[in-house]
Amino acid sequence: MSAPSNKGTLGVIGGMGPLATATFFELLVQHTQAATDQEHLDIIIYNMPRIPDRTGFILGRNEESPGPLLSEYARKLQAEGVAAIAVPCVTATYFYDEIIKSTGANVINTIDEIAVHIVNRNAKKIGLMATDGTITTRIFQKYMVKYGIECVTPDEAHQKLVMKVIFEGVKAGRDVNMSEFHSVAAHLKDCGCDAIILGCTELSVVNKQHGLDPNVFVDALVVLAGASILRCGGKVKF
Amino acid sequence: MSAPSNKGTLGVIGGMGPLATATFFELLVQHTQAATDQEHLDIIIYNMPRIPDRTGFILGRNEESPGPLLSEYARKLQAEGVAAIAVPCVTATYFYDEIIKSTGANVINTIDEIAVHIVNRNAKKIGLMATDGTITTRIFQKYMVKYGIECVTPDEAHQKLVMKVIFEGVKAGRDVNMSEFHSVAAHLKDCGCDAIILGCTELSVVNKQHGLDPNVFVDALVVLAGASILRCGGKVKF
Repeated sequence: MSAPSNKGTLGVIGGMGPLATATFFELLVQHTQAATDQEHLDIIIYNMPRIPDRTGFILGRNEESPGPLLSEYARKLQAEGVAAIAVPCVTATYFYDEIIKSTGANVINTIDEIAVHIVNRNAKKIGLMATDGTITTRIFQKYMVKYGIECVTPDEAHQKLVMKVIFEGVKAGRDVNMSEFHSVAAHLKDCGCDAIILGCTELSVVNKQHGLDPNVFVDALVVLAGASILRCGGKVKF
Repeated sequence: MSAPSNKGTLGVIGGMGPLATATFFELLVQHTQAATDQEHLDIIIYNMPRIPDRTGFILGRNEESPGPLLSEYARKLQAEGVAAIAVPCVTATYFYDEIIKSTGANVINTIDEIAVHIVNRNAKKIGLMATDGTITTRIFQKYMVKYGIECVTPDEAHQKLVMKVIFEGVKAGRDVNMSEFHSVAAHLKDCGCDAIILGCTELSVVNKQHGLDPNVFVDALVVLAGASILRCGGKVKF
Protein backbone atom coordinates (compact mmCIF):
# COMPACT_ATOMS: atom_id res chain seq x y z
CA MET A 1 0.00 0.00 0.00
CA SER A 2 2.95 2.31 0.68
CA ALA A 3 4.16 4.61 -2.09
CA PRO A 4 7.52 3.63 -3.59
CA SER A 5 10.62 5.28 -2.11
CA ASN A 6 14.31 4.98 -2.98
CA LYS A 7 15.28 5.90 0.53
CA GLY A 8 15.28 3.66 3.58
CA THR A 9 13.23 4.42 6.67
CA LEU A 10 15.12 5.64 9.74
CA GLY A 11 14.18 4.19 13.11
CA VAL A 12 14.76 6.28 16.23
CA ILE A 13 14.75 5.11 19.84
CA GLY A 14 14.34 8.29 21.84
CA GLY A 15 12.87 9.93 24.90
CA MET A 16 16.27 10.04 26.62
CA GLY A 17 15.39 12.89 27.07
CA PRO A 18 12.40 13.83 24.93
CA LEU A 19 13.56 17.39 24.20
CA ALA A 20 16.84 16.02 22.84
CA THR A 21 14.87 13.62 20.62
CA ALA A 22 12.69 16.49 19.35
CA THR A 23 15.87 18.47 18.62
CA PHE A 24 17.37 15.46 16.82
CA PHE A 25 14.21 15.11 14.72
CA GLU A 26 14.41 18.78 13.75
CA LEU A 27 18.11 18.41 12.86
CA LEU A 28 17.26 15.43 10.63
CA VAL A 29 14.70 17.52 8.74
CA GLN A 30 16.93 20.60 8.52
CA HIS A 31 19.96 18.67 7.27
CA THR A 32 18.11 16.63 4.64
CA GLN A 33 18.35 18.00 1.12
CA ALA A 34 14.69 18.20 0.10
CA ALA A 35 12.36 20.70 -1.55
CA THR A 36 9.04 18.91 -0.94
CA ASP A 37 7.62 16.75 1.87
CA GLN A 38 7.96 13.65 -0.26
CA GLU A 39 11.75 14.06 -0.64
CA HIS A 40 12.27 13.76 3.13
CA LEU A 41 13.12 10.56 4.99
CA ASP A 42 10.42 8.36 6.45
CA ILE A 43 11.17 8.18 10.16
CA ILE A 44 9.59 6.06 12.90
CA ILE A 45 10.29 7.37 16.39
CA TYR A 46 9.77 5.50 19.63
CA ASN A 47 10.01 8.39 22.07
CA MET A 48 9.96 6.43 25.32
CA PRO A 49 10.89 8.48 28.36
CA ARG A 50 9.82 5.46 30.43
CA ILE A 51 13.22 3.93 29.57
CA PRO A 52 15.10 3.85 32.90
CA ASP A 53 17.74 6.50 33.52
CA ARG A 54 21.02 5.46 31.85
CA THR A 55 23.39 7.36 34.12
CA GLY A 56 21.46 6.14 37.18
CA PHE A 57 21.86 2.50 36.16
CA ILE A 58 25.53 2.79 35.18
CA LEU A 59 26.33 4.41 38.54
CA GLY A 60 24.25 1.82 40.43
CA ARG A 61 21.58 4.29 41.60
CA ASN A 62 18.66 2.56 39.86
CA GLU A 63 18.42 -1.19 39.57
CA GLU A 64 16.47 -1.48 36.35
CA SER A 65 18.65 -1.56 33.26
CA PRO A 66 17.55 0.37 30.16
CA GLY A 67 19.04 -2.44 28.04
CA PRO A 68 15.97 -4.72 27.71
CA LEU A 69 13.64 -1.86 26.67
CA LEU A 70 16.20 -0.53 24.20
CA SER A 71 16.35 -3.99 22.63
CA GLU A 72 12.54 -4.27 22.64
CA TYR A 73 12.14 -1.02 20.66
CA ALA A 74 15.00 -2.02 18.33
CA ARG A 75 13.07 -5.22 17.57
CA LYS A 76 9.87 -3.28 16.89
CA LEU A 77 11.74 -1.01 14.48
CA GLN A 78 13.36 -4.03 12.80
CA ALA A 79 9.88 -5.46 12.27
CA GLU A 80 9.00 -2.21 10.46
CA GLY A 81 11.91 -2.83 8.08
CA VAL A 82 13.93 0.26 8.94
CA ALA A 83 17.27 0.72 7.16
CA ALA A 84 19.07 1.94 10.31
CA ILE A 85 18.34 2.86 13.91
CA ALA A 86 19.60 6.00 15.67
CA VAL A 87 19.60 6.36 19.46
CA PRO A 88 19.88 10.07 20.26
CA CYS A 89 21.30 9.57 23.76
CA VAL A 90 25.08 9.40 24.05
CA THR A 91 25.01 7.67 27.45
CA ALA A 92 22.86 4.89 25.91
CA THR A 93 25.82 3.91 23.69
CA TYR A 94 26.93 1.96 26.80
CA PHE A 95 24.19 -0.55 25.90
CA TYR A 96 25.11 -0.69 22.19
CA ASP A 97 26.77 -4.15 22.32
CA GLU A 98 23.85 -5.59 24.32
CA ILE A 99 21.30 -4.32 21.74
CA ILE A 100 23.33 -5.63 18.81
CA LYS A 101 23.85 -9.00 20.50
CA SER A 102 20.18 -9.51 21.35
CA THR A 103 18.62 -8.12 18.16
CA GLY A 104 21.25 -7.92 15.39
CA ALA A 105 19.65 -4.58 14.45
CA ASN A 106 21.52 -2.04 12.34
CA VAL A 107 22.02 0.49 15.14
CA ILE A 108 24.23 3.50 14.44
CA ASN A 109 27.05 3.77 16.99
CA THR A 110 26.89 7.43 18.01
CA ILE A 111 30.30 7.60 19.67
CA ASP A 112 32.04 5.84 16.78
CA GLU A 113 30.48 8.37 14.39
CA ILE A 114 31.74 11.22 16.59
CA ALA A 115 35.26 9.73 16.69
CA VAL A 116 35.37 9.56 12.88
CA HIS A 117 34.16 13.15 12.73
CA ILE A 118 36.92 14.24 15.15
CA VAL A 119 39.54 12.44 13.03
CA ASN A 120 38.28 14.32 9.97
CA ARG A 121 38.67 17.61 11.85
CA ASN A 122 42.32 16.77 12.58
CA ALA A 123 41.81 17.35 16.31
CA LYS A 124 44.32 15.48 18.49
CA LYS A 125 43.19 16.42 21.99
CA ILE A 126 39.52 16.90 22.68
CA GLY A 127 37.52 17.90 25.76
CA LEU A 128 34.45 15.95 26.74
CA MET A 129 31.29 17.41 28.23
CA ALA A 130 28.99 14.50 29.15
CA THR A 131 27.05 12.90 32.00
CA ASP A 132 28.75 11.24 34.98
CA GLY A 133 27.43 7.98 33.49
CA THR A 134 29.24 8.49 30.20
CA ILE A 135 32.41 9.73 31.93
CA THR A 136 32.48 6.85 34.43
CA THR A 137 32.21 4.17 31.73
CA ARG A 138 35.16 5.76 29.90
CA ILE A 139 33.32 4.75 26.72
CA PHE A 140 34.34 7.91 24.86
CA GLN A 141 37.97 7.46 25.86
CA LYS A 142 37.92 3.83 24.63
CA TYR A 143 36.69 4.84 21.18
CA MET A 144 38.97 7.87 20.88
CA VAL A 145 42.07 5.85 21.76
CA LYS A 146 41.39 3.62 18.72
CA TYR A 147 41.82 6.71 16.53
CA GLY A 148 44.81 8.15 18.45
CA ILE A 149 42.79 10.99 19.97
CA GLU A 150 43.43 12.11 23.55
CA CYS A 151 40.21 12.71 25.50
CA VAL A 152 40.18 15.14 28.45
CA THR A 153 37.37 15.24 31.02
CA PRO A 154 36.62 18.16 33.37
CA ASP A 155 37.88 18.16 36.96
CA GLU A 156 35.35 17.29 39.68
CA ALA A 157 34.09 20.84 40.29
CA HIS A 158 33.52 21.50 36.58
CA GLN A 159 31.95 18.06 36.03
CA LYS A 160 29.36 19.01 38.69
CA LEU A 161 28.51 22.07 36.60
CA VAL A 162 28.03 19.89 33.50
CA MET A 163 25.61 17.65 35.41
CA LYS A 164 23.78 20.74 36.68
CA VAL A 165 23.35 22.06 33.11
CA ILE A 166 21.98 18.69 31.95
CA PHE A 167 19.69 17.66 34.81
CA GLU A 168 18.70 20.91 36.58
CA GLY A 169 18.64 22.89 33.32
CA VAL A 170 17.59 21.10 30.13
CA LYS A 171 15.93 17.95 31.52
CA ALA A 172 13.99 20.03 34.06
CA GLY A 173 12.85 22.46 31.33
CA ARG A 174 14.62 25.40 32.97
CA ASP A 175 17.03 28.00 31.61
CA VAL A 176 20.65 26.97 31.63
CA ASN A 177 23.20 29.08 33.48
CA MET A 178 25.44 29.90 30.49
CA SER A 179 28.28 31.39 32.54
CA GLU A 180 28.60 28.01 34.28
CA PHE A 181 28.51 26.28 30.88
CA HIS A 182 31.25 28.53 29.50
CA SER A 183 33.42 28.16 32.60
CA VAL A 184 33.59 24.42 31.81
CA ALA A 185 34.52 25.16 28.19
CA ALA A 186 37.25 27.60 29.32
CA HIS A 187 38.59 25.00 31.76
CA LEU A 188 38.85 22.39 28.95
CA LYS A 189 40.53 24.88 26.61
CA ASP A 190 43.03 25.68 29.40
CA CYS A 191 43.85 21.95 29.36
CA GLY A 192 44.95 22.36 25.73
CA CYS A 193 41.92 20.87 23.95
CA ASP A 194 41.57 21.56 20.21
CA ALA A 195 37.80 21.01 20.33
CA ILE A 196 35.05 20.17 22.82
CA ILE A 197 32.54 17.38 22.33
CA LEU A 198 28.97 18.14 23.36
CA GLY A 199 28.76 14.49 24.37
CA CYS A 200 25.23 14.46 25.76
CA THR A 201 22.16 15.18 23.68
CA GLU A 202 20.91 17.66 26.30
CA LEU A 203 23.97 19.78 25.49
CA SER A 204 22.83 19.81 21.85
CA VAL A 205 19.68 21.49 23.10
CA VAL A 206 21.92 24.15 24.70
CA ASN A 207 23.72 24.53 21.35
CA LYS A 208 20.43 24.96 19.53
CA GLN A 209 19.21 27.55 22.02
CA HIS A 210 22.44 29.53 22.27
CA GLY A 211 24.22 28.97 18.91
CA LEU A 212 27.64 27.83 20.16
CA ASP A 213 30.78 28.25 18.02
CA PRO A 214 31.02 25.27 15.59
CA ASN A 215 34.81 25.77 15.39
CA VAL A 216 35.06 24.84 19.07
CA PHE A 217 32.11 22.55 19.79
CA VAL A 218 31.36 19.18 18.17
CA ASP A 219 27.65 18.52 18.55
CA ALA A 220 26.88 14.81 19.02
CA LEU A 221 23.33 15.19 17.69
CA VAL A 222 24.39 17.04 14.55
CA VAL A 223 26.98 14.34 13.81
CA LEU A 224 24.37 11.61 14.44
CA ALA A 225 21.81 13.38 12.23
CA GLY A 226 24.25 13.53 9.32
CA ALA A 227 25.21 9.86 9.74
CA SER A 228 21.54 8.83 9.97
CA ILE A 229 20.55 10.64 6.76
CA LEU A 230 23.45 9.07 4.85
CA ARG A 231 22.70 5.54 6.15
CA CYS A 232 19.15 5.85 4.83
CA GLY A 233 20.26 7.01 1.38
CA GLY A 234 19.34 10.67 1.91
CA LYS A 235 21.46 13.66 0.94
CA VAL A 236 22.93 15.82 3.73
CA LYS A 237 22.58 19.60 3.55
CA PHE A 238 24.88 21.72 5.75
CA MET B 1 8.87 -5.70 29.91
CA SER B 2 7.81 -2.04 29.87
CA ALA B 3 8.02 -0.01 33.08
CA PRO B 4 4.62 0.88 34.59
CA SER B 5 3.13 4.23 33.57
CA ASN B 6 -0.10 5.97 34.57
CA LYS B 7 -0.15 7.89 31.34
CA GLY B 8 -1.29 6.67 27.96
CA THR B 9 0.99 6.61 24.94
CA LEU B 10 0.35 9.20 22.24
CA GLY B 11 0.46 8.10 18.61
CA VAL B 12 1.39 10.64 15.96
CA ILE B 13 0.93 10.34 12.20
CA GLY B 14 3.22 12.99 10.77
CA GLY B 15 5.54 13.97 7.96
CA MET B 16 2.95 16.35 6.50
CA GLY B 17 5.34 18.18 6.51
CA PRO B 18 8.20 16.81 8.59
CA LEU B 19 9.28 20.18 10.01
CA ALA B 20 5.74 20.76 11.29
CA THR B 21 5.82 17.32 12.93
CA ALA B 22 9.19 18.10 14.56
CA THR B 23 7.72 21.39 15.82
CA PHE B 24 4.64 19.57 17.13
CA PHE B 25 6.88 17.07 18.97
CA GLU B 26 8.81 19.94 20.56
CA LEU B 27 5.54 21.64 21.59
CA LEU B 28 4.37 18.39 23.20
CA VAL B 29 7.54 18.22 25.28
CA GLN B 30 7.54 21.93 26.17
CA HIS B 31 3.88 21.94 27.24
CA THR B 32 4.05 18.78 29.35
CA GLN B 33 4.44 19.40 33.07
CA ALA B 34 7.47 17.24 33.90
CA ALA B 35 10.72 17.58 35.82
CA THR B 36 12.41 14.34 34.74
CA ASP B 37 12.47 12.29 31.52
CA GLN B 38 10.25 9.63 33.08
CA GLU B 39 7.39 12.09 33.72
CA HIS B 40 7.02 12.83 30.00
CA LEU B 41 4.57 11.12 27.66
CA ASP B 42 5.56 8.06 25.68
CA ILE B 43 5.05 8.99 22.04
CA ILE B 44 5.25 6.88 18.90
CA ILE B 45 5.66 8.94 15.74
CA TYR B 46 5.18 7.73 12.20
CA ASN B 47 6.80 10.58 10.32
CA MET B 48 5.87 9.56 6.79
CA PRO B 49 6.49 12.27 4.21
CA ARG B 50 5.73 9.58 1.58
CA ILE B 51 2.03 10.22 2.34
CA PRO B 52 0.66 11.83 -0.84
CA ASP B 53 0.09 15.59 -0.82
CA ARG B 54 -3.26 16.38 0.82
CA THR B 55 -3.94 19.66 -0.94
CA GLY B 56 -2.92 18.12 -4.28
CA PHE B 57 -5.42 15.27 -3.89
CA ILE B 58 -8.28 17.47 -2.67
CA LEU B 59 -7.81 19.81 -5.63
CA GLY B 60 -7.49 16.87 -8.06
CA ARG B 61 -3.83 17.50 -8.92
CA ASN B 62 -2.56 14.12 -7.71
CA GLU B 63 -4.57 10.95 -8.10
CA GLU B 64 -3.36 9.02 -5.09
CA SER B 65 -5.34 9.68 -1.94
CA PRO B 66 -3.51 10.03 1.38
CA GLY B 67 -6.48 8.28 3.06
CA PRO B 68 -5.34 4.63 2.82
CA LEU B 69 -1.84 5.35 4.19
CA LEU B 70 -3.28 7.49 7.01
CA SER B 71 -5.51 4.54 7.95
CA GLU B 72 -2.58 2.11 7.67
CA TYR B 73 -0.49 4.11 10.17
CA ALA B 74 -3.51 4.57 12.46
CA ARG B 75 -3.85 0.77 12.52
CA LYS B 76 -0.17 0.33 13.35
CA LEU B 77 -0.50 2.78 16.23
CA GLN B 78 -3.66 1.04 17.44
CA ALA B 79 -1.70 -2.22 17.50
CA GLU B 80 0.79 -0.47 19.82
CA GLY B 81 -2.06 0.31 22.21
CA VAL B 82 -1.86 4.10 22.02
CA ALA B 83 -4.42 6.11 24.04
CA ALA B 84 -4.97 8.66 21.25
CA ILE B 85 -3.65 9.61 17.83
CA ALA B 86 -2.74 13.15 16.74
CA VAL B 87 -2.30 14.09 13.08
CA PRO B 88 -0.33 17.33 12.96
CA CYS B 89 -1.57 18.37 9.50
CA VAL B 90 -4.71 20.48 9.41
CA THR B 91 -5.47 19.68 5.77
CA ALA B 92 -5.44 15.96 6.67
CA THR B 93 -8.54 16.51 8.85
CA TYR B 94 -10.39 16.15 5.51
CA PHE B 95 -9.68 12.40 5.79
CA TYR B 96 -10.73 12.17 9.47
CA ASP B 97 -14.07 10.44 8.82
CA GLU B 98 -12.42 7.94 6.45
CA ILE B 99 -9.76 7.00 9.05
CA ILE B 100 -12.34 6.63 11.82
CA LYS B 101 -14.63 4.55 9.58
CA SER B 102 -11.90 2.17 8.45
CA THR B 103 -10.02 1.81 11.75
CA GLY B 104 -12.19 3.00 14.66
CA ALA B 105 -9.01 4.55 16.07
CA ASN B 106 -9.16 7.29 18.70
CA VAL B 107 -7.94 10.08 16.42
CA ILE B 108 -8.03 13.65 17.78
CA ASN B 109 -10.00 15.93 15.47
CA THR B 110 -7.68 18.92 15.11
CA ILE B 111 -10.26 21.34 13.70
CA ASP B 112 -12.85 20.46 16.33
CA GLU B 113 -10.26 21.14 19.03
CA ILE B 114 -9.50 24.51 17.44
CA ALA B 115 -13.22 25.39 17.28
CA VAL B 116 -13.63 24.67 21.00
CA HIS B 117 -10.55 26.77 21.71
CA ILE B 118 -12.02 29.67 19.67
CA VAL B 119 -15.30 29.40 21.60
CA ASN B 120 -13.35 29.61 24.87
CA ARG B 121 -11.64 32.78 23.61
CA ASN B 122 -15.05 34.37 22.96
CA ALA B 123 -14.10 35.18 19.37
CA LYS B 124 -17.09 35.56 17.03
CA LYS B 125 -15.43 36.25 13.71
CA ILE B 126 -12.14 34.61 12.88
CA GLY B 127 -9.77 34.80 9.94
CA LEU B 128 -8.35 31.63 8.45
CA MET B 129 -4.85 31.21 7.06
CA ALA B 130 -4.64 27.73 5.52
CA THR B 131 -3.82 25.82 2.33
CA ASP B 132 -5.99 26.02 -0.79
CA GLY B 133 -6.92 22.40 0.01
CA THR B 134 -8.28 23.29 3.45
CA ILE B 135 -10.01 26.42 2.14
CA THR B 136 -11.61 24.61 -0.84
CA THR B 137 -13.09 21.85 1.33
CA ARG B 138 -14.67 24.51 3.58
CA ILE B 139 -13.94 22.08 6.41
CA PHE B 140 -13.04 24.85 8.87
CA GLN B 141 -16.19 26.79 8.01
CA LYS B 142 -18.35 23.68 8.59
CA TYR B 143 -16.95 23.13 12.07
CA MET B 144 -17.05 26.82 13.03
CA VAL B 145 -20.70 27.16 11.99
CA LYS B 146 -21.60 24.46 14.55
CA TYR B 147 -20.29 26.79 17.25
CA GLY B 148 -21.76 30.00 15.79
CA ILE B 149 -18.40 31.35 14.69
CA GLU B 150 -18.04 33.23 11.42
CA CYS B 151 -14.97 32.18 9.43
CA VAL B 152 -13.38 34.61 6.95
CA THR B 153 -10.89 33.50 4.28
CA PRO B 154 -8.44 35.80 2.45
CA ASP B 155 -9.25 37.18 -1.01
CA GLU B 156 -7.56 35.52 -3.98
CA ALA B 157 -4.45 37.71 -4.02
CA HIS B 158 -3.81 37.25 -0.29
CA GLN B 159 -4.56 33.51 -0.45
CA LYS B 160 -1.77 33.22 -3.03
CA LEU B 161 0.59 34.79 -0.49
CA VAL B 162 -0.48 32.23 2.14
CA MET B 163 0.30 29.38 -0.28
CA LYS B 164 3.66 30.99 -1.08
CA VAL B 165 4.56 31.16 2.63
CA ILE B 166 3.65 27.49 3.10
CA PHE B 167 5.06 25.85 -0.03
CA GLU B 168 7.87 28.15 -1.24
CA GLY B 169 8.88 29.12 2.29
CA VAL B 170 8.50 26.52 5.06
CA LYS B 171 8.10 23.29 3.07
CA ALA B 172 11.02 24.25 0.81
CA GLY B 173 13.21 25.02 3.85
CA ARG B 174 13.59 28.69 2.82
CA ASP B 175 13.08 31.92 4.77
CA VAL B 176 9.53 33.22 4.78
CA ASN B 177 8.79 36.72 3.49
CA MET B 178 7.29 38.12 6.70
CA SER B 179 5.99 41.31 5.12
CA GLU B 180 3.84 39.14 2.84
CA PHE B 181 2.72 37.11 5.87
CA HIS B 182 1.74 40.24 7.78
CA SER B 183 -0.07 41.75 4.79
CA VAL B 184 -2.43 38.74 4.90
CA ALA B 185 -2.97 39.24 8.65
CA ALA B 186 -3.68 42.97 8.13
CA HIS B 187 -6.14 42.10 5.36
CA LEU B 188 -8.05 39.69 7.66
CA LYS B 189 -8.08 42.23 10.51
CA ASP B 190 -9.48 44.81 8.04
CA CYS B 191 -12.33 42.31 7.47
CA GLY B 192 -13.20 42.65 11.18
CA CYS B 193 -11.72 39.39 12.48
CA ASP B 194 -11.23 39.06 16.26
CA ALA B 195 -8.50 36.46 15.83
CA ILE B 196 -6.61 34.63 13.08
CA ILE B 197 -6.22 30.88 12.93
CA LEU B 198 -2.82 29.60 11.84
CA GLY B 199 -4.72 26.75 10.20
CA CYS B 200 -1.81 24.92 8.62
CA THR B 201 0.98 23.32 10.62
CA GLU B 202 3.60 25.03 8.40
CA LEU B 203 2.30 28.35 9.76
CA SER B 204 3.03 27.07 13.27
CA VAL B 205 6.63 26.80 12.15
CA VAL B 206 6.46 30.49 11.18
CA ASN B 207 5.03 31.24 14.64
CA LYS B 208 7.84 29.36 16.31
CA GLN B 209 10.49 31.12 14.25
CA HIS B 210 9.03 34.63 14.54
CA GLY B 211 7.08 34.64 17.84
CA LEU B 212 3.70 35.93 16.62
CA ASP B 213 1.28 37.72 18.98
CA PRO B 214 -0.78 35.06 20.85
CA ASN B 215 -3.57 37.62 21.35
CA VAL B 216 -4.11 37.68 17.60
CA PHE B 217 -3.01 34.28 16.31
CA VAL B 218 -4.47 30.89 17.26
CA ASP B 219 -1.80 28.28 16.56
CA ALA B 220 -3.33 24.97 15.40
CA LEU B 221 -0.31 22.97 16.56
CA VAL B 222 -0.26 24.50 20.04
CA VAL B 223 -3.98 23.73 20.44
CA LEU B 224 -3.42 20.16 19.20
CA ALA B 225 -0.43 19.69 21.53
CA GLY B 226 -2.50 20.72 24.57
CA ALA B 227 -5.39 18.45 23.57
CA SER B 228 -2.99 15.52 22.95
CA ILE B 229 -1.32 15.82 26.37
CA LEU B 230 -4.70 15.93 28.14
CA ARG B 231 -6.06 12.92 26.19
CA CYS B 232 -3.08 10.86 27.35
CA GLY B 233 -3.50 11.82 31.00
CA GLY B 234 -0.60 14.28 31.09
CA LYS B 235 -0.60 17.73 32.66
CA VAL B 236 -0.38 20.77 30.39
CA LYS B 237 2.09 23.54 31.21
CA PHE B 238 1.60 26.94 29.56
